Amino acid sequence: MARTTITTQVAIMGAGPAGLMLSHLLAKQGIESVVVEIRSRKEIQETVRAGILEHGTVNLLVDSGVSDRVLREGDRHDGIELRFNGESHRIDFKDLVGESVWLYPQTDVFADLAARRETDGGDVRYSVTDTTVHDLEGKPKVWFTDADGQEFEIQSDFLVGADGSRSHCRRQVPETARTQYFHEYPFAWFGILAEAPRSADELIYANSQHGFALISQRTETVQRMYFQCDPKENVAEWDDERIWSEFRKRVNGNGFELKEGPVLEKMVLPFRSFVHTPMRHGNLFLAGDAAHTVPPTGAKGLNLAIHDVKMLFEGLDSFYATGSTALLDSYSDRALDRVWKAQHFSYWMTSMLHTVPGADDFDRARQLGELHSVVSSKHGMAYLAESYTGWPTGNQFILTHPLG
Amino acid sequence: MARTTITTQVAIMGAGPAGLMLSHLLAKQGIESVVVEIRSRKEIQETVRAGILEHGTVNLLVDSGVSDRVLREGDRHDGIELRFNGESHRIDFKDLVGESVWLYPQTDVFADLAARRETDGGDVRYSVTDTTVHDLEGKPKVWFTDADGQEFEIQSDFLVGADGSRSHCRRQVPETARTQYFHEYPFAWFGILAEAPRSADELIYANSQHGFALISQRTETVQRMYFQCDPKENVAEWDDERIWSEFRKRVNGNGFELKEGPVLEKMVLPFRSFVHTPMRHGNLFLAGDAAHTVPPTGAKGLNLAIHDVKMLFEGLDSFYATGSTALLDSYSDRALDRVWKAQHFSYWMTSMLHTVPGADDFDRARQLGELHSVVSSKHGMAYLAESYTGWPTGNQFILTHPLG
Repeated sequence: MARTTITTQVAIMGAGPAGLMLSHLLAKQGIESVVVEIRSRKEIQETVRAGILEHGTVNLLVDSGVSDRVLREGDRHDGIELRFNGESHRIDFKDLVGESVWLYPQTDVFADLAARRETDGGDVRYSVTDTTVHDLEGKPKVWFTDADGQEFEIQSDFLVGADGSRSHCRRQVPETARTQYFHEYPFAWFGILAEAPRSADELIYANSQHGFALISQRTETVQRMYFQCDPKENVAEWDDERIWSEFRKRVNGNGFELKEGPVLEKMVLPFRSFVHTPMRHGNLFLAGDAAHTVPPTGAKGLNLAIHDVKMLFEGLDSFYATGSTALLDSYSDRALDRVWKAQHFSYWMTSMLHTVPGADDFDRARQLGELHSVVSSKHGMAYLAESYTGWPTGNQFILTHPLG
Repeated sequence: MARTTITTQVAIMGAGPAGLMLSHLLAKQGIESVVVEIRSRKEIQETVRAGILEHGTVNLLVDSGVSDRVLREGDRHDGIELRFNGESHRIDFKDLVGESVWLYPQTDVFADLAARRETDGGDVRYSVTDTTVHDLEGKPKVWFTDADGQEFEIQSDFLVGADGSRSHCRRQVPETARTQYFHEYPFAWFGILAEAPRSADELIYANSQHGFALISQRTETVQRMYFQCDPKENVAEWDDERIWSEFRKRVNGNGFELKEGPVLEKMVLPFRSFVHTPMRHGNLFLAGDAAHTVPPTGAKGLNLAIHDVKMLFEGLDSFYATGSTALLDSYSDRALDRVWKAQHFSYWMTSMLHTVPGADDFDRARQLGELHSVVSSKHGMAYLAESYTGWPTGNQFILTHPLG
């Protein structure tokens, strides 16, 4: 059976937020793309993922017309609390750097993008199988079998690998043509969803001698929380009482008490840093988790992916409008600039807030000295706030002609 | 032979900058003190020690009338350069936080204080031997033998241990009454004085794959520089050519070239963090190096000592003026607040700028990510500048009656 050929300008592997956002932005400029995704739309939709969106990410969603649901249903957070030594210290983003973040699940970002692509008639093929990629250094081709068993070949000018942390695309880059950076952390996060009222209006990042905890929110009646744990922790060994007792030790005190309730879900989140460079190989461009992973402490994963997409969109848009490859050629450097800032920020937040196995008394006292230094300095707090809410984009969102 | 009794209000062990500054401030308020020191004045005077003075330290020297030589002969520095990836980035203190530091050797701070104490008829006994301290929890006593072989006992209300990092006073605090914090770093500094013109007007903190280097200044014709080395490095194995070759690798490039010349002195500087808490035991108060040591990267040692003395002076002054022990009781907490900020700052500057043995490629790339984050953020630079030039004193220099 012969493969059916699909010809397009940009082939995109992966229909997560990065892949769909790129496809959406390109469509608005009249640039064709086809997105293929091995998971079903339902499967992605049902994968519960938290999300803290930088203002830049929210602006892109809203300004490009994806959806304003984030503004209506998301919670704008103008700060976070750092809690240590039994006391909370607010980092007031709005006051310090004039910005905010939005608590809005990644799952909802996907839903908004998928709906908008559907409305606009975007070519997004979910539930494909047998995907392989070819001719990365020439005219890239993607082979896949669709949900009905039909075989296709996409022929495109460019291939974008937005296919997540286990990226198939990334693995096709020859070893001699890339450098990869890894960092393993000696802990993980134990995450729960619990049926309980909000314990606080904003996120609480708690450092304690018993380890880190993060108190977050989801809805009026369901909350999301995490505590630092051993990477090998087995969720089956944790009943509700044991879980709450761990949270109480780390967060309660001085008049603050967590609101508890039945634990609805529990999971262990891995913790690693990974960067693949360069983010381009021939006509393959990597974006999002396919190129980099950050620990969840800085809430940077989705935001970095969207920033990659902005940079990449600029490059493609400029190429199709003017023929210039300058912005495509600088894509990797421009994206990596922010990736390494985010890697550092995630590492900083992690090391400032977690207890490190084997740390001695000096390490612990110095850590408190750092937390105290940050919260007692307007500059220290502003540095954290700027990183958390999202750095200004050095290379502004350059449009060669107005976003339609 | 009977000991001759000396009665005073405050006995001070150690005639370094901390001890002499305290004695000077007390004298201005009419509070008597006697300072004893095991080294000769000449020996201290001839111990070459570098110095970067925070604006607060300079203000205290000048405002309390010690000397304005720092303003006339010291070099005001309105910034430093962070150099990495072969490029220099200026941290403009004046612009970022409105403050400066002064390059003025600690040796000269001592000379100014010693001269002023002499002019004012202060009781400072150098070259004493057989010092022991007694009754720390009651009316403290200091026994010593003076340079002429005569034996004395000082009886005082309070004893101040400003006797340096090998403090005799500190060692008299029972183990059960204190907690000590240590941190060893896996490197040291190789320091030189060289006969050469200035290579730059301000300090250059250089990070490179070959290790850290610091380019400083002393006079028009003699310069002070350091490079990160193994703690066991033997200076005898380093001739001039080998030393300069090490500096060139770490600092030269992109149009910048160090001005070289004959090496006049070379030494290995140890690198450790130490904190002894609390800084008070009964009527013994510890100040400066006797209570804490920081690595030299943040240039905080002398400045912390002078800050301790300000805090301690406030307590003693308040006690003699009003009988209240409140500020003496809070001395340790108020001093340690800054000590831990300084420990963290020194650790931060050290870990951001040095190459750590055993660091992998991720660590190195993340370190460059951090340096890039700092210099590309006004908030990051201001946080560094505020720490470097000296944090505002939370408890302002509280005087119960005007400084005479």
